[in-house]
Amino acid sequence: VLVPARASETKPQTRPDVDSITAALDVIGDRWSVLILRAVFRGVTRFSAIRDDLGIASNLLTSRLNGLVEESVLERRPYCKRPLRYEYRLTDAGRDLSPVLISLMHWGDQHRQGGNAPTVLLHDDCGTPVRNATHCPECACEIDATAIRSEES
Amino acid sequence: VLVPARASETKPQTRPDVDSITAALDVIGDRWSVLILRAVFRGVTRFSAIRDDLGIASNLLTSRLNGLVEESVLERRPYCKRPLRYEYRLTDAGRDLSPVLISLMHWGDQHRQGGNAPTVLLHDDCGTPVRNATHCPECACEIDATAIRSEES
Repeated sequence: VLVPARASETKPQTRPDVDSITAALDVIGDRWSVLILRAVFRGVTRFSAIRDDLGIASNLLTSRLNGLVEESVLERRPYCKRPLRYEYRLTDAGRDLSPVLISLMHWGDQHRQGGNAPTVLLHDDCGTPVRNATHCPECACEIDATAIRSEES
Repeated sequence: VLVPARASETKPQTRPDVDSITAALDVIGDRWSVLILRAVFRGVTRFSAIRDDLGIASNLLTSRLNGLVEESVLERRPYCKRPLRYEYRLTDAGRDLSPVLISLMHWGDQHRQGGNAPTVLLHDDCGTPVRNATHCPECACEIDATAIRSEES
C-alpha cells in the first residue's frame, strides 16, 4: 500500500518525554563533548590541561567548550589575569549529568567490554565501586524496567 | 605556537572508559533509535504498531530496527506465520539501557523542561515516581559526582 508522505515521517514526532531525552542527547551526544565533560569531572578544568589531556586541537576544543557553556553545563572562569586564561567548571546542570555518564559507562562496560570495566568509579570515602540504579523511594527497593509504567502528567 | 598536526587531533583518542560511553552512544545516540526503544519499553513491540505509534516511514523503521538487532539490544520474533509478521523484544542488553534512558529523561525534565516532567515513570506496584541515583552499596548512601573518583582497573 502506498501511503502519502507526511511531515512526521521525515523526522521524529514531538513526544514530550522524548524531548527530554533528545535534549539531553543534544548535550552529550557528541564524542568530543563527552570527553571534555569526563575530563572536567576528573578535575581537569583548564583549557590548556584539557587540550593536553585529550590531544584535541585548540580550535575544536574552543568550539566544543563554547557549546557546553551555551548549553549551561559548563561555566568559564578566569584563573589568571595576565595573560588572561580560563578554566571551566561544571554548573549544577553539568553536575547533574553525572548519572547519565555513569549509566552509559556501566552499560558499555557490561555489554561492550565483556564486563571488564577498564576504569572503575569508586566512592571516595571508602573505595567501594559505585552503583547506578533505579529505585522506588516509597518501597525502598531497586526496580527494573518491567516494574515501571509511564504516565502523562 | 604552531603545533604540528597529530592524528589524535582529528578524532578523539582511545580512552577505555570513554570507549564504554561512546559505545553506548552508538546505540542510543540516534533519535529514531531512542524513540523506537522507548516504544518497546512501553510495550509497543510489533512492526506495524511501532510504525503507527511513531509515524515513521516503513523503510526508516526497518533500517533502525535492523541496527538495533545488530547491536543486540532488540531481537526479532515472528508472531504470525501467514503472513509472516515480526515483533521486537528487548534483549538483556536492551533492558539494561533502562537506567540510561531514565537518567537522560530526568536530566531533560529538570534542565530543559523547567522541572515539569511531561511524562512520569511510576513504580507499577505502588504508583510512586521512580528515582535514578548513584549510590555506594557499602555505605548504603546516595552519592553525588564530587564524592566519586575514577581508577584504572
